[in-house]
Amino acid sequence: MASSLIVDLNCDLGESFGRYKLGDDAAMMDMVTSANIACGFHAGDPGVMARTVIMARDRGVALGAHPGYPDLQGFGRRPMGISAEEVSHLICYQLGALEAFARIAGVRMSHIKPHGALYNLASQDQAMAVAISRAVAAYDRDLILVGLAGSELVRAGQAVGLHVANEGFPDRSYLSDGQLAPRSQPDALITDPEEVARHAVQLVRDGVIIHNDRVTIDTLCIHGDHPHAVSNAHKIRQALQAAGVQIRPLNHHPSD
Amino acid sequence: MASSLIVDLNCDLGESFGRYKLGDDAAMMDMVTSANIACGFHAGDPGVMARTVIMARDRGVALGAHPGYPDLQGFGRRPMGISAEEVSHLICYQLGALEAFARIAGVRMSHIKPHGALYNLASQDQAMAVAISRAVAAYDRDLILVGLAGSELVRAGQAVGLHVANEGFPDRSYLSDGQLAPRSQPDALITDPEEVARHAVQLVRDGVIIHNDRVTIDTLCIHGDHPHAVSNAHKIRQALQAAGVQIRPLNHHPSD
Amino acid sequence: MASSLIVDLNCDLGESFGRYKLGDDAAMMDMVTSANIACGFHAGDPGVMARTVIMARDRGVALGAHPGYPDLQGFGRRPMGISAEEVSHLICYQLGALEAFARIAGVRMSHIKPHGALYNLASQDQAMAVAISRAVAAYDRDLILVGLAGSELVRAGQAVGLHVANEGFPDRSYLSDGQLAPRSQPDALITDPEEVARHAVQLVRDGVIIHNDRVTIDTLCIHGDHPHAVSNAHKIRQALQAAGVQIRPLNHHPSD
Amino acid sequence: MASSLIVDLNCDLGESFGRYKLGDDAAMMDMVTSANIACGFHAGDPGVMARTVIMARDRGVALGAHPGYPDLQGFGRRPMGISAEEVSHLICYQLGALEAFARIAGVRMSHIKPHGALYNLASQDQAMAVAISRAVAAYDRDLILVGLAGSELVRAGQAVGLHVANEGFPDRSYLSDGQLAPRSQPDALITDPEEVARHAVQLVRDGVIIHNDRVTIDTLCIHGDHPHAVSNAHKIRQALQAAGVQIRPLNHHPSD
Repeated sequence: MASSLIVDLNCDLGESFGRYKLGDDAAMMDMVTSANIACGFHAGDPGVMARTVIMARDRGVALGAHPGYPDLQGFGRRPMGISAEEVSHLICYQLGALEAFARIAGVRMSHIKPHGALYNLASQDQAMAVAISRAVAAYDRDLILVGLAGSELVRAGQAVGLHVANEGFPDRSYLSDGQLAPRSQPDALITDPEEVARHAVQLVRDGVIIHNDRVTIDTLCIHGDHPHAVSNAHKIRQALQAAGVQIRPLNHHPSD
Repeated sequence: MASSLIVDLNCDLGESFGRYKLGDDAAMMDMVTSANIACGFHAGDPGVMARTVIMARDRGVALGAHPGYPDLQGFGRRPMGISAEEVSHLICYQLGALEAFARIAGVRMSHIKPHGALYNLASQDQAMAVAISRAVAAYDRDLILVGLAGSELVRAGQAVGLHVANEGFPDRSYLSDGQLAPRSQPDALITDPEEVARHAVQLVRDGVIIHNDRVTIDTLCIHGDHPHAVSNAHKIRQALQAAGVQIRPLNHHPSD
Repeated sequence: MASSLIVDLNCDLGESFGRYKLGDDAAMMDMVTSANIACGFHAGDPGVMARTVIMARDRGVALGAHPGYPDLQGFGRRPMGISAEEVSHLICYQLGALEAFARIAGVRMSHIKPHGALYNLASQDQAMAVAISRAVAAYDRDLILVGLAGSELVRAGQAVGLHVANEGFPDRSYLSDGQLAPRSQPDALITDPEEVARHAVQLVRDGVIIHNDRVTIDTLCIHGDHPHAVSNAHKIRQALQAAGVQIRPLNHHPSD
Repeated sequence: MASSLIVDLNCDLGESFGRYKLGDDAAMMDMVTSANIACGFHAGDPGVMARTVIMARDRGVALGAHPGYPDLQGFGRRPMGISAEEVSHLICYQLGALEAFARIAGVRMSHIKPHGALYNLASQDQAMAVAISRAVAAYDRDLILVGLAGSELVRAGQAVGLHVANEGFPDRSYLSDGQLAPRSQPDALITDPEEVARHAVQLVRDGVIIHNDRVTIDTLCIHGDHPHAVSNAHKIRQALQAAGVQIRPLNHHPSD
C-alpha cells in the first residue's frame, strides 16, 4: 500500500566556514528530517558546527556526521590518494569532533554519510568501503551508515553489522544499471523542480534496480546550496505527501 | 612525611604531523604517567593521534587532550585574538576528536591541558579561563583540568566543579610571586639537567607560593622535544624517587 | 579650488575561496579605481587570484596586493602574535604570489595594502610598520604603500622612501585626534548611505587632522562585501563627482 | 670522451615547516649544484623559504622552485584530482612566491621542478604536462623545466619552447622501457650507497633508453631526507668525479 511508504529527507548542512556563508541552514532544516553536518575538513568550522547542531536539535532534525577529505579549497570534491587506513582515521576524528557538540547540546548522533569525493569512492571501491564501515562500527555500532543505494558502501556496512540507509538523488538521472549518470552526461542533472519532485516520488515508490535486485530507497538527498533550494525542497515534500509517503527520520524506521 | 609525596609526570606527545616527526614518543611514554596528546590544530594529525593513543594505552599512561590554537605554522605558540566563545568551540572540537581515538582503543580520556599560547592566556585571563573550564565541564565533568599552578585556569576549573591539577615546570625559573619567569629573562630556562632534577624535587616538596598561599604541585611538565629529553626525564625520575616521591597518574590521587 | 581635488577609490576584492563566494567582484570593479586583491592567506586562492587579476586588467583598475595573516578561518581579522621578521616574510611571499598573476596577465602591480588585523597593527605599531615598509621596499620600490591616514605605516613607508597613500574610510567615524572610532563605540560605523557619501566628500575636501597636522586623503576605502555595496559605492561616486572631485587611481597622482 | 660528460646534481630543500625541521639543508647545499625549494604548499613556509634562498645564494647553488599540491599533511605525495587549469594557477602562485625571496636576495630563479604526486602525474599525463609547461612559459621563458627523463613533461616543455632538463634517479631502478620501477616492486629502491653511486655514473654515461631513443641525463636527483643523506651524496660526487664527470648547474650547460 502506498500508505506504508516512508522516506527520510537528508541535506548537507553546516557548510559555512568562518566569514564564508553557504546555504540557508535554518530554512533547509525545516524541509528535512536528517542533517548531515560538515566536520571541519572539507567545510564547517567549530563555531559553525556548534550552531548547526543546536539548530538541528531545536527542530528535532536527526543529526549526522558528514566527514570529508581534508581539502577545504576543493570542498572535498577532489579525489585524493589517501590510504584506506588513513581514511579510517579521518572518519574517526570527524565523528568524534561532531559528537562533542552533540553531547554538549544533549542530543545523540544518528547517522554518518561520507562527503563528496569520499562518498563517490566509497560507493565503488570495496576496500575503502570496508575501511569506512569498520571505522564507523568501531566508533559506534548504533550509527546508521548512509550510502548510495546498492553501493559497495552499503554492502560493506551491512557486512560489518551496521544499520545502513540506501540513498537516492531526486535531481540526478540514473543509468539502467542503477548507477548515477556521470555528471559529464548532458542530462545527468535534473533541473526542472517539478521533474525532480516526480523523480523523488518514483525513487521512493520503485526504488532502484541494481544487478536485477530492487533496492528500496531509505533517504533522499535534498540539495541546500542553490538559490531555489528551499522552494525546490518544498515541492519534493508536497509531491511525496500527495503520493502518501510519510517523511520520517531514519532512526524511526521499522527496518532499522 | 616525605613518603606521602605524590606527583604525576606529564609530557606533550603526538606532536608529529604527516611527514614531519617530532620527539621520540615511545621513549618519552616510558618516562611519564600522563600523555597530553595534540589534537590536530597546532600539531598532530588523525593518524598520529590514533597511533599515539594506542601507544599510551599499551603502556598504561593516562591519556589527555592537548588542544591548541588552529595554527600549525606557529605550533600554537603565537597568541591569537580568538574570542572566548570561539575558544570554547575549539576546545570542544578537539576533545571530541581525541576521545574518538580513545573510544576505539578502549580507554578513557583522563585529563585536558591547553597548549602553548592558549595555556598562557588561560593562566592569566579570567574570562578565557572560565570559558575553557565551562567547555570542559559541559563536555565531561570527569576530566581533570591541568593548568599552571595557582593560575586563573585552575581557579576557574575549581569554580565550575572540575577536578583540577596544578602544574609545575622543573626547567623554568619562578618569580617570587609564583609566576613563571618570562622567557625574555636570561635565566628563565634552567638548562643544567641536574639542576632541573633538583628543581623538580623542590617543586613537589615545597609547592609554589602564590599570593601568600602554598599551592601543591600535582603534576610536573616534562619536555620531550629536545635531544636529551629522555635522559633528562630519567634524571628527574631518579631524583624524585630518591626523595621518596611516588610517581603516579593524576586519576589515582586521593585528592581527586 | 574644488576642481583640483583628486581621490582614488579602492576596494578589497578577490576574497572568494574555493566553493565560497564573497562579494560581487565584477560589479565593484566598475565602481573603483584600485583593487586590493587577497593573496591566499586570509582569503583568495590561486584560481580566484588569476581571475580577479584578469578582471582588474580588463577594466583598467589598478592592481594591488592585499596580504594578510595566515588565518582563513578568522579572515585575517584576528590579531596574531607573529614577529615583525616573520611578517616581512609573509608580505614578501604574498607580494610575489600576486605579482605572478599580474605578470602572466601582462600588467603591473601598483600598490600594496595590508589586510585586517595586520593593517590595524601596522597603523599603531612602529616596529611592525617599519618591518612591512622595508619588506615592500626590498621587493619593489615602485609600489605604493597604502595605510591609514597619518598612521605609523604611512610614516614608516615615507621614511624608507616609498610612495605612500593616506587612506580614509567614508563609513567609519573618526575621533577628534584623527583616529578611527573603535568598532565598540555605538556610532563607529556610519550606516546611512547618504551620510557615507557626504562623509566621503568631506574626507577628500578636509582631510583628517592628526597631531594638529592636516593629512590629505589619497584614497577612500569602499567596502564590497555587504548587500547594497554596489549602490552605496555608486552614491559615493555621485557625491564626489557632484563636488568636483576627480576619481583617479593612485599611480596617476602628481604627488606620487 | 668522458671528459665532456657534465651533470647537475639537484636536491629538494627548504622542506621544513614552522616548528618541524626536515633534512640538513646546509650540509646538502654543499653537495649539490641546484636546489629545488619547496614553496609553502606541500612543505616550506615563508620564513623557511627566505632562509633557504639566502643559503643557496651564499653557496652559489642554482635556485629552483619546487611547487606541489596544496597538501601539507600528505607532503604533496598523494594524488589529487585537481584540474589542469587549476594546477597551472598553483604553479604560477608558487613560482611567484619563491621568486619574491630570490628577488630580495638579489638572485635569479634558474629552474622549476614539480614535486611528488604532481611530478609523477606530469610525467605521464600529457594534458597536465602541457598545462604546467604553458604556465611556466607564460611566467618566465628563461626557466629550465626539470622532469623525469623522456617523460611527457619534458616533451611538453620542449614543445612550448622551454629549456628542459632530463632528470635521473640514482637510487631508483629503471624498467627496460626507461620508466622508473614502481615503488611497489621489491627492488625499486636501491639502498646500497655504493650501488647508488655506480648507478649515478651509469645514468650520466649511458642515459636512459626510452622508445628506442637514448635520452641524456642532465641532472641527478639527490635525496636529502634520510639519515645518511650527506655521506651518500658524497659517495655519488666522488664516483662521478672519478669517472671524469663535471658537476655543474643546469644553466651553465652548453645545450641550454
